[in-house]
Amino acid sequence: MNSKSLSVSRRVRATPFSKRVEQAGVQAYTVYNHMLLPTQFKSAEEDYWHLCEHVQVWDVAAERQVELKGPDAAKLAQLMTPRDLRRLDTLQGKYAPICDEQGFIFNDPIIIKLADDRFWLSLADSDVRLFAKGLAIGYELNVEVFEPEVYPLAVQGPKAEELVARVFGESVHAIRFFRGEILSFEGVDMYVARSGWSKQGGFEIYVPNPEIALPLWDVLFEKGRDLHVRAGCPNCNERIEAGLLSYGGDMDAFDTPFECGLDSYLDLNADIESLSIQALREKQHTITRRLVGLAFHGEPNLSDVFNYVGGADLLVNGKKVGELRSQAWSFKFNKQLAFAMIDTDYLDNNDCIEVDGMSSIFHEIPFNPDKLMT
Amino acid sequence: MNSKSLSVSRRVRATPFSKRVEQAGVQAYTVYNHMLLPTQFKSAEEDYWHLCEHVQVWDVAAERQVELKGPDAAKLAQLMTPRDLRRLDTLQGKYAPICDEQGFIFNDPIIIKLADDRFWLSLADSDVRLFAKGLAIGYELNVEVFEPEVYPLAVQGPKAEELVARVFGESVHAIRFFRGEILSFEGVDMYVARSGWSKQGGFEIYVPNPEIALPLWDVLFEKGRDLHVRAGCPNCNERIEAGLLSYGGDMDAFDTPFECGLDSYLDLNADIESLSIQALREKQHTITRRLVGLAFHGEPNLSDVFNYVGGADLLVNGKKVGELRSQAWSFKFNKQLAFAMIDTDYLDNNDCIEVDGMSSIFHEIPFNPDKLMT
Repeated sequence: MNSKSLSVSRRVRATPFSKRVEQAGVQAYTVYNHMLLPTQFKSAEEDYWHLCEHVQVWDVAAERQVELKGPDAAKLAQLMTPRDLRRLDTLQGKYAPICDEQGFIFNDPIIIKLADDRFWLSLADSDVRLFAKGLAIGYELNVEVFEPEVYPLAVQGPKAEELVARVFGESVHAIRFFRGEILSFEGVDMYVARSGWSKQGGFEIYVPNPEIALPLWDVLFEKGRDLHVRAGCPNCNERIEAGLLSYGGDMDAFDTPFECGLDSYLDLNADIESLSIQALREKQHTITRRLVGLAFHGEPNLSDVFNYVGGADLLVNGKKVGELRSQAWSFKFNKQLAFAMIDTDYLDNNDCIEVDGMSSIFHEIPFNPDKLMT
Repeated sequence: MNSKSLSVSRRVRATPFSKRVEQAGVQAYTVYNHMLLPTQFKSAEEDYWHLCEHVQVWDVAAERQVELKGPDAAKLAQLMTPRDLRRLDTLQGKYAPICDEQGFIFNDPIIIKLADDRFWLSLADSDVRLFAKGLAIGYELNVEVFEPEVYPLAVQGPKAEELVARVFGESVHAIRFFRGEILSFEGVDMYVARSGWSKQGGFEIYVPNPEIALPLWDVLFEKGRDLHVRAGCPNCNERIEAGLLSYGGDMDAFDTPFECGLDSYLDLNADIESLSIQALREKQHTITRRLVGLAFHGEPNLSDVFNYVGGADLLVNGKKVGELRSQAWSFKFNKQLAFAMIDTDYLDNNDCIEVDGMSSIFHEIPFNPDKLMT
């Protein structure tokens, strides 16, 4: 069983879109950055195929922003990530692991440059605001650090571009991946980027105040009727199939970017002031485990091993060689897929790896997010 | 409706007690520090009366610890709180708001001194580890900051002391409030403190490794059979009745300790090096709103106004004067109770305050945690 009842309180924040999400018949949530994030509307499979064929509007307001604003904003952003941010254009975003001085990952946001002295970290699930705040105080940086009133709404699926163009105009066609424009809706300017946590294409709209949230939602539905628009959410099956990692699930604060296969998002030779760069340079050649994709034979039911145990051990001949981190059925490949952190000793042969008594031949699925994250 | 389905993944961590919690028939969870925290077993009312009359074992592993260890541990702890920690005895805990340089609250942990160079911050729901880490790096402090493998288990209710003594020995009777001892269970030493998030009395056991978690749980149930022990959890009705605040719900990062009535946990005249003390000295006389308890006439059903809206406005003659932060029915007083942040202009008269069209005479309930937190 993979779901239980969720008690709601003000601490588990609703979003400006929650009313419509409820009306659209949301069936389940997770909690992400202390906020409700929908996880299912009809069934995992119906949600999946609809996303692959049509267009969905996702309440991803839980993808909170940390705003860095002031003369030292760029300096603070660079301190937190080993990725070189100097070549970031205005209104461009970059996938950038946030690491501490030992090289462990705290988050993997998209860092968006709004101006030379203004950045957003579009967060995965941890309070990076507190890290940024601590650094800003400790280093006496001239920068404001805060969570702005910005509520991302994603439009995802093959018909997303058409729908977003109908609402924001034809200029959206020219927006490249991880780039954005300031576009207007009912007189309110907002950042609209080609991005999103699916491989089906689409946009994220950074809604800058709660008052405009429902009007925008409603217009997307009015103009998308013939495109079969409906409410959706990040789809676990699709994202694992697509090789998109989830911070906290697939990787955590005990992992380094190398172990998670994020090597290409590090600029270890760049002459930048980053907290983690020295530790990462030292660690890069001593990796003993790596995050990989697994595809299982047959149709094992992995949901039991995820029944509130937070993962499961992987065994070869009774010896632990790694741990399962997330899993889902692939509707496209008709296979059980998973992400697992595995000792590198076992990576080069096709050993039969057991999960709780279920055997599988392991091999990598194309989980590397290279093509999606630039 | 106040509950929905919760999707579970490794990101929403299970605890070493989750297996027993499930077997005990948990009905709902919340997510707290990225971890499952049970919220209901039978009904709110059954859970409430049982807690007030017998003894419950609570899986509060989600009350994560931040450990500060090293020569600068005490310095770092003091930087984060305006409460004077110098007089803290070893194995004593103090309720201590964590504030930034502007005096806003980031968390309200119990800070426990384990040794002169070793502290635990026993957290409410936010990643204070990242704040501590940022400060340690920025100030170049000689201190380790990490989340230790410690999983608190609470034993609460009028018969808690008897049960804990049966398991850990008669010395527990001598433990004073917010004090603790290192006691042994099956050869494993652990910190046992007289504390917990209820007004019914009890202890918190800081279980130092997952292997001992289920054996300890089982012994508590074996030895507590005649005390009518059962699995429980923080009870929203009891905690509001008792005046215990919830960080993130009743107070958040846009509030100061003064606004939340936490004046007595600040040592503004102490000669301590604390980030927030200067800002708090300046802000203490300019408070324009305050967190208070409300008791409503009649039996208004407030659950609707909390239906994913994250609070509700309070009105006097149509003008907004504050916002509701949490609410629950008091089974003892037979009244609807709530915490609300209200403009101080409206505090001194018994104006009729409306909530979404429901009227109420406002007055304070004894929510100040003075007597519980020392």
